[in-house]
Amino acid sequence: MPVGLIPPVALLPVRGLRTGTAAAGIRRPDRPDLALFEVGAGAQVAAVFTQNQFCAAPVVVARRHLAAATPRALLVNTGYANAGTGADGEADALACCRAVARALGCRPEEVLPFSTGIIGGRLPVDRIKAHIAPAAAALSEDGWLQAAHAIMTTDTVAKGVSRTFDAGGRQATITGIAKGSGMIEPNMATMLAFVATDAHVPADLLQELLLDAVGSSFNSITVDGDTSTNDACVAIATGQSGLRVDRHAPAAEAFQKALRAVCEWLAQAVIRDAEGATKFVTVAITGARDREEARSVAYAIGRSPLVKTALFAQDPNWGRLLAAVGRAVHRPMNPDRLSLHINGVSIFKDGAPDPDYREQAGVDAMHKSDIEIGIDLGLGSGEARIWTCDLSYEYVRINGDYRS
Amino acid sequence: MPVGLIPPVALLPVRGLRTGTAAAGIRRPDRPDLALFEVGAGAQVAAVFTQNQFCAAPVVVARRHLAAATPRALLVNTGYANAGTGADGEADALACCRAVARALGCRPEEVLPFSTGIIGGRLPVDRIKAHIAPAAAALSEDGWLQAAHAIMTTDTVAKGVSRTFDAGGRQATITGIAKGSGMIEPNMATMLAFVATDAHVPADLLQELLLDAVGSSFNSITVDGDTSTNDACVAIATGQSGLRVDRHAPAAEAFQKALRAVCEWLAQAVIRDAEGATKFVTVAITGARDREEARSVAYAIGRSPLVKTALFAQDPNWGRLLAAVGRAVHRPMNPDRLSLHINGVSIFKDGAPDPDYREQAGVDAMHKSDIEIGIDLGLGSGEARIWTCDLSYEYVRINGDYRS
Repeated sequence: MPVGLIPPVALLPVRGLRTGTAAAGIRRPDRPDLALFEVGAGAQVAAVFTQNQFCAAPVVVARRHLAAATPRALLVNTGYANAGTGADGEADALACCRAVARALGCRPEEVLPFSTGIIGGRLPVDRIKAHIAPAAAALSEDGWLQAAHAIMTTDTVAKGVSRTFDAGGRQATITGIAKGSGMIEPNMATMLAFVATDAHVPADLLQELLLDAVGSSFNSITVDGDTSTNDACVAIATGQSGLRVDRHAPAAEAFQKALRAVCEWLAQAVIRDAEGATKFVTVAITGARDREEARSVAYAIGRSPLVKTALFAQDPNWGRLLAAVGRAVHRPMNPDRLSLHINGVSIFKDGAPDPDYREQAGVDAMHKSDIEIGIDLGLGSGEARIWTCDLSYEYVRINGDYRS
Repeated sequence: MPVGLIPPVALLPVRGLRTGTAAAGIRRPDRPDLALFEVGAGAQVAAVFTQNQFCAAPVVVARRHLAAATPRALLVNTGYANAGTGADGEADALACCRAVARALGCRPEEVLPFSTGIIGGRLPVDRIKAHIAPAAAALSEDGWLQAAHAIMTTDTVAKGVSRTFDAGGRQATITGIAKGSGMIEPNMATMLAFVATDAHVPADLLQELLLDAVGSSFNSITVDGDTSTNDACVAIATGQSGLRVDRHAPAAEAFQKALRAVCEWLAQAVIRDAEGATKFVTVAITGARDREEARSVAYAIGRSPLVKTALFAQDPNWGRLLAAVGRAVHRPMNPDRLSLHINGVSIFKDGAPDPDYREQAGVDAMHKSDIEIGIDLGLGSGEARIWTCDLSYEYVRINGDYRS
């Protein structure tokens, strides 16, 4: 069960973007597993993809299509990731794009394919092609919630959020959905996230602001340190609200803030629904020599199986936190300046246990479902904040059972 | 239970080195938890220590003493690591050294302290001091096996091995012991390892050959990616066999080979006895552009919770292996040249699943207790080999329960 995460009951439509889903029986029968997005004319599209060198066929094709044309449609399937499938996989992804192009009357290069699920299996292309017509028939501006369900894999709840923002007397909407629960240390994203606004945003500005928002959201989470082969985050700006977001205009700031908020909400939702998670953990590092050092320390803590099992056991085992800090800092440091809090309880300061610390206060802090680990290194002004979860029996069960 | 590891029933004595143990009740009653080594006059000592910046007080003191004098004694306690204890911890370590110096008639700087166990608690210095006399009274050249038991923490079996080697018509012995089971990704060692020979080895050559042996042994294993605050590996050469190991002499090669064999046996023993391990896994990477790239790929696989849970589930989930490879390679690569074997079964070649691969063959291979994952990247001649284990329910239980 997700940690403190209430799934959306409604998502705001974005004018100029329609979604439709279908149950194609890709890996399991009777569940929606195909989501189609139709992007209205005049929209701008930005995207970031996984940095994994062994990226999936749909990532290869989507990158190529994005470079060649402004997308008019996105097709997402769950069940199989179409990764590790070689040239056959690329042909499969292209065949799906051609089928969408025929159904919607656009060119294949105007279709971006996305896949998520098991690495290694071939896509059942015929079943997918046969279900593009029903997905197209279902296209609606009110289809976001169904799409959020259709892209799930090991997710236990659908993840989506809407915000509105305004500038110059006009209001615009921003809605996003994401999926992801394991193989999460995006570099870039939570496997898949789709965010759209009806503001008008020039393509280069949209890409820039997406990168900014991804940096503090999808690129600031880890479940297991495993970067997926299929990660992708797409931002679409349809322009149909009439609100224009131009560089240096006040609207740009309003949009940036709203985009960050939506991406951070979605990234945190991925962690709250992480495989086997019983804790939602914020790791906040301050006082590092630079941001990179702060991130290195935060990720060393967020990835450490010893820290994560202690979180699962609700054990304020600060020794494991210190060991992770010391492992992540590669330049000499003076531990005499380090201080450590858990949910506001001071445990360690000036290089030694806080004399006022009582174990029971630490145990009480660890029994919350949301845990904030705060560490000040006392070395400089570098800061970073990431989100992670604990490591439970359930994580082992889910990942031992996933294929069987 | 350890994976295919038979604990030693006897270890060869090393002339000029005596060990004695005592049960000081440091954290648990009625078990040996203190080991004393007395190093004969004229011996050379080399050591490598953890790279963790937050290293423990005994590491700080041992480094300082090693720089000041040739050690005549080593004191090892289990129960508490004396890490994260600030200036008090350093004073505690020094107090222990002074007590050993008094008992053996040497200077405190000639004593190296080592601690392993819980990070954060203070050492019970009075109890330790009170038990140095019984440990000293027990000193014997036949004390290795008792010492191997006394330094254990979460280890389920004692770890030790002996070899002999000869050169120039003389024979010498090399015996080593180690402890370690969790918080294992030494950079340097398996928390603690002590290796001694009765050959004569000059100090600079001993340090050089120890670094070489540690590189292919303790620095080639990972359980959980967590580098301990207390890791240390010490090599002692007493010289009392009469066999001289001089640089460029044939004896140097014989000694290097024996030292490597002992260190690799001990490092593999740590993995075979790793917390919760049900599999002993060799990750062998070939065809990388250089050794660093090969090691980066090997460690990405060895640390991956998704790979490790698949190993536990005996699931030939090669998709997770490919994802780990792609995450670890930071320069562009052509996956079309990649090939992958598990225990000799070809699963993936030339960028796509091997057409002759049958899932049942992969499942059969995964049911062995020793698993070799072989990946050729097809990019160059860089190679690396590391040892790791799976991630089981038992790992979560041990590390959730360890303090409670």
